Amino acid sequence: MLSSLNIELEGKIEKSRNDLLGSLFQGFIMENIDTDYADTLHVSTLHPYSQYVTMTDDKIIWTLNTLNAEAKEKIADKIKKMEKVNIKYKEKEYKIVSTKEKSISYKDLVKENYLKDGSRRLKVSFLTPTSFKQDGRYVIFPTVRLIFQSLMLKFDKSSSDMEVFGKDILETFESYTEITMYKLRSTYFHLDGTKIPSFIGDITITIKGPAQLVNLANLLLKFGTYSGVGIKTGIGMGGTAFE
Amino acid sequence: MLSSLNIELEGKIEKSRNDLLGSLFQGFIMENIDTDYADTLHVSTLHPYSQYVTMTDDKIIWTLNTLNAEAKEKIADKIKKMEKVNIKYKEKEYKIVSTKEKSISYKDLVKENYLKDGSRRLKVSFLTPTSFKQDGRYVIFPTVRLIFQSLMLKFDKSSSDMEVFGKDILETFESYTEITMYKLRSTYFHLDGTKIPSFIGDITITIKGPAQLVNLANLLLKFGTYSGVGIKTGIGMGGTAFE
Repeated sequence: MLSSLNIELEGKIEKSRNDLLGSLFQGFIMENIDTDYADTLHVSTLHPYSQYVTMTDDKIIWTLNTLNAEAKEKIADKIKKMEKVNIKYKEKEYKIVSTKEKSISYKDLVKENYLKDGSRRLKVSFLTPTSFKQDGRYVIFPTVRLIFQSLMLKFDKSSSDMEVFGKDILETFESYTEITMYKLRSTYFHLDGTKIPSFIGDITITIKGPAQLVNLANLLLKFGTYSGVGIKTGIGMGGTAFE
Repeated sequence: MLSSLNIELEGKIEKSRNDLLGSLFQGFIMENIDTDYADTLHVSTLHPYSQYVTMTDDKIIWTLNTLNAEAKEKIADKIKKMEKVNIKYKEKEYKIVSTKEKSISYKDLVKENYLKDGSRRLKVSFLTPTSFKQDGRYVIFPTVRLIFQSLMLKFDKSSSDMEVFGKDILETFESYTEITMYKLRSTYFHLDGTKIPSFIGDITITIKGPAQLVNLANLLLKFGTYSGVGIKTGIGMGGTAFE
């Protein structure tokens, strides 16, 4: 099961530095979940959640996505019950004003996206700084290959029923899929005193080729709104929206 | 000799469609230069000029660059003497309010850019829609390779004294040079009822490696402010600024 918990927060934030909150909120999560589960997460390669902070109309929205039922129960359900978020950095606290939640099973996600005709023009927004790592270097321009590679690997780790990754399918994506419109800028994600080169903005992906590929793209991008795209999606990077 | 003629125009323009003026002004040039020279330009692969239209503070600026003395004399010097620019499209005319001109010899261009230590952080602005063609397709994301390949080919065509293009040097550029910051968006350049996929915006190129390479990059990008970058620089695309 995939779940998304939207938490509206009240409190002061330095507008240009909302990326800081990502790692601070991750710290808050770790302090407030069962120690055993926190230890499991530390050693696991699964990363069954993603979270990021956005600002809309001066509202602070913290999005906390979980990628399986256990993570929902042990992370999101715990956080949802709390009244405020305390962080150690400058002793700040954020009041939880309201929460909204939505969930979908992997079965329904597949049914709604893969098993019906999807759009061939897909608009993806990178809401928080997003980056990929390739050959040990950060890549600050999105490519079709990097996006779908990241999503396929995340999907296969999270979903136990369906496997989508393959080099062939990645090459098929490269042949039939193109970024046809974009508005992007480079930025940095601040983390523990370092700056991770990244980008933010919107792209439109256009897909030619078989309907099956179109549907797979729709499925993966919808999944991406839960998993995030690229690196460090657990600490605030790679939050995406998809229409 | 490289020359740049900046012509301030007065007249009405649809703001979102200043790309239209590029091809209209090219028509105006062809009608107002000697027929013999116009014929020469038609069959030549040299393209000894570039031109584009920009808007700043509601001023219309037409930039007409020439890449050798003959083109300056036969194109820019003719246009400079005129009082207005008439175009056939909707019978519009633009009054020439003022002109500014600057010139530099290839020798001085090399002296000022290649023969002294240049900056390793180069900010390039694509002022008008810019595009590259690769394997028969338009490329709407700039890359270091495409930029310097385009500039080297244009440089070698225009300058008779110095040759810079080589596959080796292009690979050296790719290894040591990187786009480290950008703010770009895709756009279309309208031409004869078709739309050419392109991009517009700013990038910062950072160069490691030998000083010689840094200086060559500086030289080429400075040259690019005269030649333009990419395709269709004679009809309004690929106008660049460089600091």
